Amino acid sequence: MSDRTTSTDVLVIGGGMAGLAGALAMRENGASVTLVERASEFGEVGAGLQMSPNAARVLKRWGLLDQALEIGVRPKHLVFRDALSGEELTRQTLGSEFEERYGAPYLVIHRSDLHRILLNACDKAGVTLINDVMIDRVETVDGRGRAYAHNGDVYQADVILGADGLKSTLRSAVSDDGPVPSAFVAYRGTVPITDAIPQDDLEDVIVYLGPNCHLVQYPLRKGELLNTVAVFKSPSFERGEEQYGGVDELEKAYKDCVPEVRNALKNLGTSMRWPMYDREPIDNWVAGRMVLIGDAAHPMLQYLAQGACQALEDAAVLQDLSKGTVFTDLGRTSEAWDEVLRTFNAARFPRTAQVQRTARIWGESWHVSGTGRVLRNMLFKSRGDGNYQYNDWLYGQSPALVFASADDVSNETVSAI
Amino acid sequence: MSDRTTSTDVLVIGGGMAGLAGALAMRENGASVTLVERASEFGEVGAGLQMSPNAARVLKRWGLLDQALEIGVRPKHLVFRDALSGEELTRQTLGSEFEERYGAPYLVIHRSDLHRILLNACDKAGVTLINDVMIDRVETVDGRGRAYAHNGDVYQADVILGADGLKSTLRSAVSDDGPVPSAFVAYRGTVPITDAIPQDDLEDVIVYLGPNCHLVQYPLRKGELLNTVAVFKSPSFERGEEQYGGVDELEKAYKDCVPEVRNALKNLGTSMRWPMYDREPIDNWVAGRMVLIGDAAHPMLQYLAQGACQALEDAAVLQDLSKGTVFTDLGRTSEAWDEVLRTFNAARFPRTAQVQRTARIWGESWHVSGTGRVLRNMLFKSRGDGNYQYNDWLYGQSPALVFASADDVSNETVSAI
Repeated sequence: MSDRTTSTDVLVIGGGMAGLAGALAMRENGASVTLVERASEFGEVGAGLQMSPNAARVLKRWGLLDQALEIGVRPKHLVFRDALSGEELTRQTLGSEFEERYGAPYLVIHRSDLHRILLNACDKAGVTLINDVMIDRVETVDGRGRAYAHNGDVYQADVILGADGLKSTLRSAVSDDGPVPSAFVAYRGTVPITDAIPQDDLEDVIVYLGPNCHLVQYPLRKGELLNTVAVFKSPSFERGEEQYGGVDELEKAYKDCVPEVRNALKNLGTSMRWPMYDREPIDNWVAGRMVLIGDAAHPMLQYLAQGACQALEDAAVLQDLSKGTVFTDLGRTSEAWDEVLRTFNAARFPRTAQVQRTARIWGESWHVSGTGRVLRNMLFKSRGDGNYQYNDWLYGQSPALVFASADDVSNETVSAI
Repeated sequence: MSDRTTSTDVLVIGGGMAGLAGALAMRENGASVTLVERASEFGEVGAGLQMSPNAARVLKRWGLLDQALEIGVRPKHLVFRDALSGEELTRQTLGSEFEERYGAPYLVIHRSDLHRILLNACDKAGVTLINDVMIDRVETVDGRGRAYAHNGDVYQADVILGADGLKSTLRSAVSDDGPVPSAFVAYRGTVPITDAIPQDDLEDVIVYLGPNCHLVQYPLRKGELLNTVAVFKSPSFERGEEQYGGVDELEKAYKDCVPEVRNALKNLGTSMRWPMYDREPIDNWVAGRMVLIGDAAHPMLQYLAQGACQALEDAAVLQDLSKGTVFTDLGRTSEAWDEVLRTFNAARFPRTAQVQRTARIWGESWHVSGTGRVLRNMLFKSRGDGNYQYNDWLYGQSPALVFASADDVSNETVSAI
């Protein structure tokens, strides 16, 4: 090894939620873990994040749930309303019955808060965190991964976790696909909560569903901040313009909505717009000793609020599957690692593909108009609070999260996920 | 009175289902009734007709239900399937529980058979039935209605029931509206049942729902005939062509449907196409001593199969409201009759308007595609067999059918219908 080369059991590329979670999971198994991040500081842009119980359980296993609950909010209900009429369509009470069923609460937390919790946990656990590292290329040589940084440094590792997000460049090792624009644009904002905001609404996650638009609102930081997300279909995207979804389109998109929705638009930051992308599911995330995780592997639309949640699930499954796998810098664990990555991929692909696909359909159901809206509202209203048939597949203890080693993943298990 | 003038208690204009039912209802109350029909023979075009319990109860009160059941079929289930996948979406068992709930069975019968039953009943009851009478004009003079026939004959009556159907000319006395084309065209057919047709399907009313098309199939004449109706959105209507919905469009409209649906198209007669119309609800059907009934008053799209059924309800309500009202050819009952017509209109309008509007929405829900189809299928599948929440308003004993006189119709009753 030259003096530009460092060796580690696990190299993680990317310091977002997925990278930090993956690093922490592998460190929990005793691996030496190095995480490299392109930016000069660790951080997370964006506003609020909904953490469903399937992800909260992962925080719980790492002893981080209490920290998250300390800074986050445990909403009382998840409420859907029609944005044109204001009518309530359905609600899910998120109280003790819900928490008992899924083994963890539903919480909302600022993205930067969750990111900091994971970062601190990685730091405390002994993950080596390095900024300003741009990885140009990854390859597998003699059963070990090698990542070549732009500055000439080389990182060797038994396993490389590729966690470089939606616009992943590492993904080119397994697919030549690209992000798929959804024509929808988000504006976000967090504002201090004032008396002007109806108090009842500060305990719930409220989603207003409108034709080609929706608005999500919930409290953050122990109820001190109000988080608002407005997502609408951009007419300029439809016209084929490259710079689409400007703030000029924002008000217009909500003009037919009830005052509660229109008034909420003033809580948005307008300096930044977020075009919404996902990708088609791909069934192979493994190239030699590199495996993609999080958005790099399975970027999804935000409608199920599962982007970060599925990244946490990835980490938990990887932790379970690699538990007991011996780490070495001499390549002696070659076959065991190949099997771990193969099994991880096989176990996670059906689930994340289902979430990706369902998020698309779910989002479409939010944005229908005319007859579709009539049907959507009837369907939602036919669902009683506490009917878990639409939640269990996503929030429940799926087989992918409970098996302890590769041996537990039979073909039947995978297909049943 | 000149020798061209005849006098009668009730004059009915139009010898379709509505006219015959109205004539019979008034005759049951002891009125002298004359029915005039423009055509030179009484008869009914079309194929099968679904008679829901709300209408079967009317036949029952007239002692005609047994005749209808003798020639008709009592289907075992009402089944909805997706036309693209063949998947069953929902079913309603039409057995004893259903019949007990609604006080009558659900039956299907050839239109011409039902028409003949009503015609024979009118004849037997002593209704004067006259063909080849074209009414040019109706007016009210000195508290009596006068209908002027094209041949110079004049009919005087205390009450005139205008039952000249969808294309009603009598309606011009109360509205200058016209029929509203739906862009959908129907082809119908009845064929002898052969062994080639799956036996299971011969006991049910089966509706296949597809994007911009549907197909309905049920047995007729004690199971000897198979009735098929195919309804699709005409591309040439969309293009603004006057002669739309030709047979060239038929096969194409169903090209993506399952073989069961495509094969059923060969059971259709192709010499006649039926463009589907309705009208906007209007709240006044009364002009002097004439009142519109049936399609002349409230033509509706066929999706709830209520055209003939609502005409029978009209007749039953008119019978109840006018029971005991004294008929005279001297105009002495003027005020009582005005009140009967006013109350009939007030009682029936909310109900028939609801059926008209619901038929439109219901039909739209049959023809959705994409996300709308996903939502529709989920909604339909969420409904269990024997869940009557979507049936009660239509098939149940509505207030409009049970009050016995005008005094029973309070404002609350009417608004609750």
